[in-house]
Amino acid sequence: MNVQAKPAAVTTGPIAGSQKTYSSPEGWPQVQVPFREIRLGGGEAPVRLYDTSGPFTDPAARIDLESGLPPVRAPWIASRGFETVAPRPLRPEDNGNAPADRLVARCPAPHMVRAGRGGQYVTQMEFARAGIVTEEMVYVAHRENLGRAAMAAGADARRADGEDFGAAIPAFITPEFVRAELAAGRAIIPANINHPELEPVIIGRNFLVKINANIGNSAVTSSAAEEVEKLVWAIRWGADTVMDLSTGRNIHNIRDWILRNAPVPIGTVPIYQALEKVGGDPVKLDWEVFKDTLIEQAEQGVDYFTIHAGVRLGYVPLTARRVTGIVSRGGSIMARWCLSHHKESFLYERFDEICDIMRRYDVSFSLGDGLRPGSIADANDAAQFAELETLGELTRIAWAKGCQVMIEGPGHVPMHKIKVNMEKQLALCHEAPFYTLGPLTTDIAPGYDHITSAIGAAMIGWFGTAMLCYVTPKEHLGLPNRDDVKTGVITYRIAAHAADLAKGHPAARLRDDALSRARFDFRWDDQFNLALDPDTARAFHDETLPKEAHKVAHFCSMCGPKFCSMQITQDLRQEAERMAGLEEKSREFVEKGAAIYVETKAAE
Amino acid sequence: MNVQAKPAAVTTGPIAGSQKTYSSPEGWPQVQVPFREIRLGGGEAPVRLYDTSGPFTDPAARIDLESGLPPVRAPWIASRGFETVAPRPLRPEDNGNAPADRLVARCPAPHMVRAGRGGQYVTQMEFARAGIVTEEMVYVAHRENLGRAAMAAGADARRADGEDFGAAIPAFITPEFVRAELAAGRAIIPANINHPELEPVIIGRNFLVKINANIGNSAVTSSAAEEVEKLVWAIRWGADTVMDLSTGRNIHNIRDWILRNAPVPIGTVPIYQALEKVGGDPVKLDWEVFKDTLIEQAEQGVDYFTIHAGVRLGYVPLTARRVTGIVSRGGSIMARWCLSHHKESFLYERFDEICDIMRRYDVSFSLGDGLRPGSIADANDAAQFAELETLGELTRIAWAKGCQVMIEGPGHVPMHKIKVNMEKQLALCHEAPFYTLGPLTTDIAPGYDHITSAIGAAMIGWFGTAMLCYVTPKEHLGLPNRDDVKTGVITYRIAAHAADLAKGHPAARLRDDALSRARFDFRWDDQFNLALDPDTARAFHDETLPKEAHKVAHFCSMCGPKFCSMQITQDLRQEAERMAGLEEKSREFVEKGAAIYVETKAAE
Repeated sequence: MNVQAKPAAVTTGPIAGSQKTYSSPEGWPQVQVPFREIRLGGGEAPVRLYDTSGPFTDPAARIDLESGLPPVRAPWIASRGFETVAPRPLRPEDNGNAPADRLVARCPAPHMVRAGRGGQYVTQMEFARAGIVTEEMVYVAHRENLGRAAMAAGADARRADGEDFGAAIPAFITPEFVRAELAAGRAIIPANINHPELEPVIIGRNFLVKINANIGNSAVTSSAAEEVEKLVWAIRWGADTVMDLSTGRNIHNIRDWILRNAPVPIGTVPIYQALEKVGGDPVKLDWEVFKDTLIEQAEQGVDYFTIHAGVRLGYVPLTARRVTGIVSRGGSIMARWCLSHHKESFLYERFDEICDIMRRYDVSFSLGDGLRPGSIADANDAAQFAELETLGELTRIAWAKGCQVMIEGPGHVPMHKIKVNMEKQLALCHEAPFYTLGPLTTDIAPGYDHITSAIGAAMIGWFGTAMLCYVTPKEHLGLPNRDDVKTGVITYRIAAHAADLAKGHPAARLRDDALSRARFDFRWDDQFNLALDPDTARAFHDETLPKEAHKVAHFCSMCGPKFCSMQITQDLRQEAERMAGLEEKSREFVEKGAAIYVETKAAE
Repeated sequence: MNVQAKPAAVTTGPIAGSQKTYSSPEGWPQVQVPFREIRLGGGEAPVRLYDTSGPFTDPAARIDLESGLPPVRAPWIASRGFETVAPRPLRPEDNGNAPADRLVARCPAPHMVRAGRGGQYVTQMEFARAGIVTEEMVYVAHRENLGRAAMAAGADARRADGEDFGAAIPAFITPEFVRAELAAGRAIIPANINHPELEPVIIGRNFLVKINANIGNSAVTSSAAEEVEKLVWAIRWGADTVMDLSTGRNIHNIRDWILRNAPVPIGTVPIYQALEKVGGDPVKLDWEVFKDTLIEQAEQGVDYFTIHAGVRLGYVPLTARRVTGIVSRGGSIMARWCLSHHKESFLYERFDEICDIMRRYDVSFSLGDGLRPGSIADANDAAQFAELETLGELTRIAWAKGCQVMIEGPGHVPMHKIKVNMEKQLALCHEAPFYTLGPLTTDIAPGYDHITSAIGAAMIGWFGTAMLCYVTPKEHLGLPNRDDVKTGVITYRIAAHAADLAKGHPAARLRDDALSRARFDFRWDDQFNLALDPDTARAFHDETLPKEAHKVAHFCSMCGPKFCSMQITQDLRQEAERMAGLEEKSREFVEKGAAIYVETKAAE
């Protein structure tokens, strides 16, 4: 185990070909939204992209992990009148009773703990319902609008080109639209009032599809430095949120380092740490240790908690005949607790109290699908849908308390059973955002489950899922390393973007079009820079054509110069004027049959 | 350029954990169909899998590339009374005028050239229409039936679990069903009478989804040895057919080596070689050189030809405003020819004659989509669908001549525009099998286009596409190497299998279920062996837990022993008897609400 006091240096510097830029919505100079911009050749306008990577890719930013990131939300939070509270004292069990010589030091970045009171607005949902537009709402509206202003002003032809399955995607996103979506529970902005370093992000069916990356050590392998770098690495490639699934020693202090350096929402599964505190035996869990853990993590600034409150005692036997039983860690822990005590889940019975705690810090719910299917055979079974119904019931309770909620979904589901998952979730959970793991569309490809799941993720994202939890190539086999995290993130950016295109998100296609034009014009550098992973695109090209001259060559090694279809087409276009006349005739030809064309030719 | 006289040794030996086995359908001892079988622990029956890998994975087979593979079809072909013809003499231009010191030697394997006559049955379609069941039909029926006999005898519960979009998938495939599908043109068995080494495979909507891998040198890089090994490597991982897209020098002789050692159907694009013969200038192409090339390749034993006869003069201007113009090599060559001569395509005008040649050897048509979209912006446009309509017209002509036909499809298509491609193809091309490239669902991920396209491939496979042409990570960037070919093949096996599951192919799920049971039982070796890529699955697991003891450990490095959900579930099952009683109560609970469960508890 690595016990160095502070994380080693993390990856910094811009993504190849991109420049960090900040922009404020009109009238809100205090809201500075980051983007990255790619300058292009060929007389093309620069392309501006959504940027999850935080200050780490800004060469002007001074990155010092011990100081943490600049608290961009601090003035907004400060203006809301929350009380400052004495933090819960740190206890040895919070770090798994790590002995002194193995204890990772706390992150020295300053951190003041705040808590909301009853009677004041705390959560983004409460503000939204009260008709108040927060800075976070303004921020996410500006962030999502990427390219839409120009399109809304123009013909907006692309908007109609999609199938949104009932989503209500606006041509232009106003802060008021964001507020209304939050108030209705159709979207969330996970933003703990104790996480001022956060660059806010919105998760909902009527916004761009988001992706989550999981990081975390495990009892078998762990290191503090690695975890912070995994966060930085995951957001560099496009993770919108990151879940820290660490277990074992030092989890409290590692979480400190992560949160103080996280520009994205951080999610956790508090039951993991609660289990550590009772020595790893699920039977010994109780409400007090769980409650203590919620407060501990909420004070640190965790933005959303996975809570498996839908695993009710009565549902557990429904899993008895499954091929793969219960595959959710949290689900199996709670199932064991319920059966051992022969009692209803304390998460379900104490749900009101959980809401009260989470509201106080604006920690969003991610209602866990503890009974999700772990194999194709178990997809869409009684256990899964019974739990989903309960999650819908809990959603209403949480909303009544003012809490933001999203719902976790499967898992392993063959393609023909995916759509009904989305439909049931919308109906049973009152349109609360859906957050799915994949789903994996077959069980037979361990080592490639980023791909088996990207197929399902793209589809369910299209159908309406708001956030897709990534799956790495190591799924089912081991812990992802640095390369696996990157592969998982890029794969899920593909799935999310494919879904955005299919839903008809305005302007989603601008990047595809810019890249395709670069491809057709043989602007190789532009093609690489516009790619989700410029480094890999360039490296693959350079394997066969490494010279700088080849970056303007009108061919590549796939077809070689003689067979380059795009070069041939370009040559054809040099006869452009002649073709302009032909085009009209050609349409007639298609409409009226070949005879017309022959006639026209004869008449020339 | 590599000029060694014969290919170096190729990859042989069984796939990890698999054993080659052969099986004959009842009453057909002369038909020996290969499978691979995986023996399992835990008292499970062995799992038998479809096997594309040929004799190379049979330790009992003697592999000698100079002798070629055993001609399993030779006695069947011999019995059909075809005439033996003097082969067309080899000309220097067939090998791109390679100078003597750079000429790859011909493959010395014996090869007798046959040709069918008018009035006799030659093609599988002709036999089928005449009501004759060939050995090839018997072979593919037995090959496809994998696991169905047991299921058809049983409850066949899994059969109903799928959405087939109008496909007519039988519970059990008889040779008569195969014959009827061939006769109707809904399926093809690409099987040149000059390719006796072939292990027949059927391509059609009512059969398992197939995948194709492209190999081939290019003018920039090439080697004979590499190409044969690429074939062997591609079929090892599951390619059902292989297209040789070579250009440049030595292509005739390299094709010889490939065909004599190919147990899978080999496809080519003859226009590539024809273009070489006229020095690379599309304008110089003519019917004579094309016809000569068709005969040359048909005599060698190529099983299917891509012919871009749908690129009509009148359609070319429809591509003028496209973002990426014409991206098909064959399509752009023919467009250039048409516009330069201002004449209708000679492929279109001579289509009758092309049919006559192809019928003589039973070379199947793969009618090329020369105007397929090369970007999301160009998907489903007028040019694409105009060509598709012409492909439907040509299909009828080819069928009238007795030729087998499949239709090539796109390309780059966003998810919401995929389904209409399948629907139009079925309607316009009279249910001839569809064979698509991807489609890629976004343009923004060069370096990962196996994934952007696997999403579209799985979907269109589900909707009814019979064969999926793989895309490797190098697409758009360079030539695939060995690792890229493997990645492409495994990725497309995932897409094809996901489609088979969703279509409701009987028994498709047997492998998923066997693997999931192995996973749940912690039979790690069984899990690896049942995986599409056992080597990678094992290597990933061993990165963190390399010891042999870990292969029976009841946890992995993802969660560690304390958090293993599957172990917790297994422990729960030890209370199985108690749970059996609970299960019934639990169903009541779900149906009638929680109150029942509380009552029952009180009554205990």
